[in-house]
Amino acid sequence: MTSAAKIPKILVIMGSIRENRNCKVISDWILEVARQTGHKLEFELVDLQTWELPNDELNLPSQHKYESEYTKKWSEYVDSANGFLMVSPQYNWGYPAALKNALDHLYQEWHNKPVLLVTYGGHGGSKCNAQLREVFQGLKMKNMQTSPQISISREQILNGVKELDPSFTEYKPVVEKAINELADSFEPLSGTN
Amino acid sequence: MTSAAKIPKILVIMGSIRENRNCKVISDWILEVARQTGHKLEFELVDLQTWELPNDELNLPSQHKYESEYTKKWSEYVDSANGFLMVSPQYNWGYPAALKNALDHLYQEWHNKPVLLVTYGGHGGSKCNAQLREVFQGLKMKNMQTSPQISISREQILNGVKELDPSFTEYKPVVEKAINELADSFEPLSGTN
Repeated sequence: MTSAAKIPKILVIMGSIRENRNCKVISDWILEVARQTGHKLEFELVDLQTWELPNDELNLPSQHKYESEYTKKWSEYVDSANGFLMVSPQYNWGYPAALKNALDHLYQEWHNKPVLLVTYGGHGGSKCNAQLREVFQGLKMKNMQTSPQISISREQILNGVKELDPSFTEYKPVVEKAINELADSFEPLSGTN
Repeated sequence: MTSAAKIPKILVIMGSIRENRNCKVISDWILEVARQTGHKLEFELVDLQTWELPNDELNLPSQHKYESEYTKKWSEYVDSANGFLMVSPQYNWGYPAALKNALDHLYQEWHNKPVLLVTYGGHGGSKCNAQLREVFQGLKMKNMQTSPQISISREQILNGVKELDPSFTEYKPVVEKAINELADSFEPLSGTN
């Protein structure tokens, strides 16, 4: 980034593509908190429901020889981003297939980019959190030190987070802290001018 | 199982659906080793490529209120099995989306059933191995103590395991040990008659 700094573009990728997902409400709240921090970051919400990513490539993603138009489009889009904020539910003590599919479709497009992970679920989706951070490391991304884990109740999991529970405000400080880290990760690029 | 014991049915689920996958060659070899042990187990190879499992359910799998014909068919099939042998590659330090998708579509159908996991990749897919065993635990399955990790070379990952490398024979004892454990897990059911 030069002194005429381009604002870093952060893709906010929702891990769930379920029809009745809670992911949208939670992502919207995180985005609101993120925007309130006032950092110069451009956020763009990504719904994997709208990205068709079938398994039709013959080569490995690390070979970067894509044949399908779907993959090429996804590759260009991820390439255009400077960092990521991923919001993911925990499914069966792990991460959702849709999110892993989107990650596995590419390789070098993720490299060296900062990624902030927020998980949610019973116990904050702690197992999914640990597994995904390992995957991000495998993709050579830069994990943020703070990775908020939002606990939602069985009732909320079953019937949906219709509007954001007031109890969520207790997570506001940790989400702000994580967003600050994400913003700081671009600092060295902007120099000291 | 009574004295007129039904032979336990083991679904051998391949974790990869890639066109150029190594999973088929490796699974075939494991099946050959498994059959040579002479245990009374019926093995059935499952190719997730042939199972369409879209994300179109409105309810959670744990609610067991399936609406799609795809899910109902998959539910019946997994329900009909007594145990599982999963053969999975490691992708980016984690498990393949296709396998997690198939797992996450159901819930109680997996419960209390023994599962033997074999992973492969650089370093035997050890990270995928640990993550998947955690997921199996989340699905209340019974992990085998032995979980073979087959190391394949970068060359084999890129160009395919055309025919089984002679070096694979070094894994035969550990695969046999794991199959023995799987067979033993059905023993208490057969009684002492």
